[in-house]
Amino acid sequence: MQMTYLRSFRASRYCASQRPLSCILSNTIRAFAAAASSPPSKAVVYEQHGSPDGVVRVVDLPSVEIKENDVCVRMMASPINPSDINRIEGVYPVRPQVPAVAGYEGVGEVHSVGPAVNRLAVGDWVIPSPPSSGTWQTYMVKEESAWHKICKEVPMEYAATITVNPLTALRMLGDFVKLTSGDSIVQNGATSIVGQCIIQLAKINGVSSINIIRDRPGSEEVKEKTKKLGADLVYTESQLSMKNIKSLLADIPEPHIGFNCVGGDSASLVLKLLRQGGTMVTYGGMSKKPITMSTSSFIFKDLALRGFWLQKLMTGDGAIACRPMIDYLLSLVRRGELKYEMEAVPFSDFSTALDKAMGKLGSQPKQVIIF
Amino acid sequence: MQMTYLRSFRASRYCASQRPLSCILSNTIRAFAAAASSPPSKAVVYEQHGSPDGVVRVVDLPSVEIKENDVCVRMMASPINPSDINRIEGVYPVRPQVPAVAGYEGVGEVHSVGPAVNRLAVGDWVIPSPPSSGTWQTYMVKEESAWHKICKEVPMEYAATITVNPLTALRMLGDFVKLTSGDSIVQNGATSIVGQCIIQLAKINGVSSINIIRDRPGSEEVKEKTKKLGADLVYTESQLSMKNIKSLLADIPEPHIGFNCVGGDSASLVLKLLRQGGTMVTYGGMSKKPITMSTSSFIFKDLALRGFWLQKLMTGDGAIACRPMIDYLLSLVRRGELKYEMEAVPFSDFSTALDKAMGKLGSQPKQVIIF
Repeated sequence: MQMTYLRSFRASRYCASQRPLSCILSNTIRAFAAAASSPPSKAVVYEQHGSPDGVVRVVDLPSVEIKENDVCVRMMASPINPSDINRIEGVYPVRPQVPAVAGYEGVGEVHSVGPAVNRLAVGDWVIPSPPSSGTWQTYMVKEESAWHKICKEVPMEYAATITVNPLTALRMLGDFVKLTSGDSIVQNGATSIVGQCIIQLAKINGVSSINIIRDRPGSEEVKEKTKKLGADLVYTESQLSMKNIKSLLADIPEPHIGFNCVGGDSASLVLKLLRQGGTMVTYGGMSKKPITMSTSSFIFKDLALRGFWLQKLMTGDGAIACRPMIDYLLSLVRRGELKYEMEAVPFSDFSTALDKAMGKLGSQPKQVIIF
Repeated sequence: MQMTYLRSFRASRYCASQRPLSCILSNTIRAFAAAASSPPSKAVVYEQHGSPDGVVRVVDLPSVEIKENDVCVRMMASPINPSDINRIEGVYPVRPQVPAVAGYEGVGEVHSVGPAVNRLAVGDWVIPSPPSSGTWQTYMVKEESAWHKICKEVPMEYAATITVNPLTALRMLGDFVKLTSGDSIVQNGATSIVGQCIIQLAKINGVSSINIIRDRPGSEEVKEKTKKLGADLVYTESQLSMKNIKSLLADIPEPHIGFNCVGGDSASLVLKLLRQGGTMVTYGGMSKKPITMSTSSFIFKDLALRGFWLQKLMTGDGAIACRPMIDYLLSLVRRGELKYEMEAVPFSDFSTALDKAMGKLGSQPKQVIIF
């Protein structure tokens, strides 16, 4: 399924200015070394924080030296995640030092290796592990230990996107409560990629899912699509604005755990559906509204509220511990048991992809840049 | 310190009506049996749920049979807790079956025992364990296993009140995070009995306390009093409405855990003072306002919100597990290391005590009925 995309880089509004480019990446030493070096890289960089369409530019970066433990990777694909936008805006809790190359996850093919590298070889497919800033460029150089070799039998868009959203779904299903076959979960934002992964991963483990979607035109179609993915129940928020909400569960047991990426009233619906002693995990806040819960729900219903942040899990040895999980997720992709919607976009169309990812062109599938 | 109170029961607005009294306690068989029986009991009963000053009456209940495993206890003292009011109102999640004798904890002296009783003897001091409905009366009969013998060297008001509030403080300090010497906690409602116990129990374990009190006339005096009890820092809510709130902590470490019995903005102050990864435990909601928290506090600050309900801990073997903790708390009382304000009131003044407990006469210390 590997696709061929226009690789030629066309001047665009993201094109480099006349500033000396060698100073753009202060934390990466790029030099025309006598030793082996990477090819020059085309990269999406920003020199200050702000709205991405105002501050990012596509520039040519010079070659960098490949040291003895380094691996030079020709990047193949990288997604535009909401957190990438937030990092560029400077509103993310971990504010990347500028100037910086944007992007946080992706997949590439090993292009060349330093003399001490023994685990990776030219032609291997690798992902940065832990994911880290700088994936929106054509060539990346990092130490061998920072790359995780993956199997090549998956579409590259999936390899490029497996670390952030599907891993979030997998970890959230396992990290908070012990779910076993016959249990159920509830979630809002069920059409997000994390939401789609939760539905499928739950199903694989015999866990039913109760899904909440927004009220909008076409919600019946969305329901059908979500059910085809494996969702047991799908309701719009307005369908759940009733007193005896639990009567809707029919023979599905009340859920131990709920996942919230919306906040506000939508989060309250998740809370209402939880069983006594249940836990709601917040991993996003699309409505930009906070989460509100009554005192009695804490005391007498014994609900617990928690948060999930993938990046926190990736510190120290966390990323190493996640590698087998990534392999597991990719094996599901290979077997056709895990899928989600994406749109592959050639790098030359980055500007449009960014507009779509920023929501300027209405609801769009996840944008994945193909380099 | 045992006090003598007027024991004669005077007719009052709580006095019994002309209804046959034998039908009042449907779940307790009281009969003039040929076998050993209890003395008649004067009891605060309610036959329907509603505002306590409208529905409770003090009535004479006939003797009950003392079966072979039963212990008849002459009640000495019992407090009026907010949850007692809620139970009478019928707004508590566990709604006592009516008609019922009110009250939930207390202390008494063993008056007589059934022939198979071997652990308790006449004259022992005992508390109902688990605490249970029916302590607002002069004689209570329950199986031996439902009573916990305590030492007699504590003021009876403390023995009567040790199970609900001090045990809540002790359990909350231990059940959620591992606190060690040098740590700190934050709480609102710091002048409540639970709040006063938290301050002292924290201090005993080398844990500092940051305390939030309401803005009200006399708050400076309240601060001084709270500090004398062992509080490290005491602030009014308005003092904490500042941007750099953590600068107030000075050399006290940011707290791992916070306790909230107020809700609304006061709960938000507790959340603001918590460290990354901290937990707030809600055990009351005096402001009747819910708890609101931002999405980013869940995801990036990794705060967790939990609830605490003592009654839940008292099911199954929970009450047995709590008995050594009660003994520990009473040992602290005996050594003068745990104290809190109470007002001992003779049973004959029950009506006034109830008015005070219901807040009709302004802020008042905990009312403890002495039978």
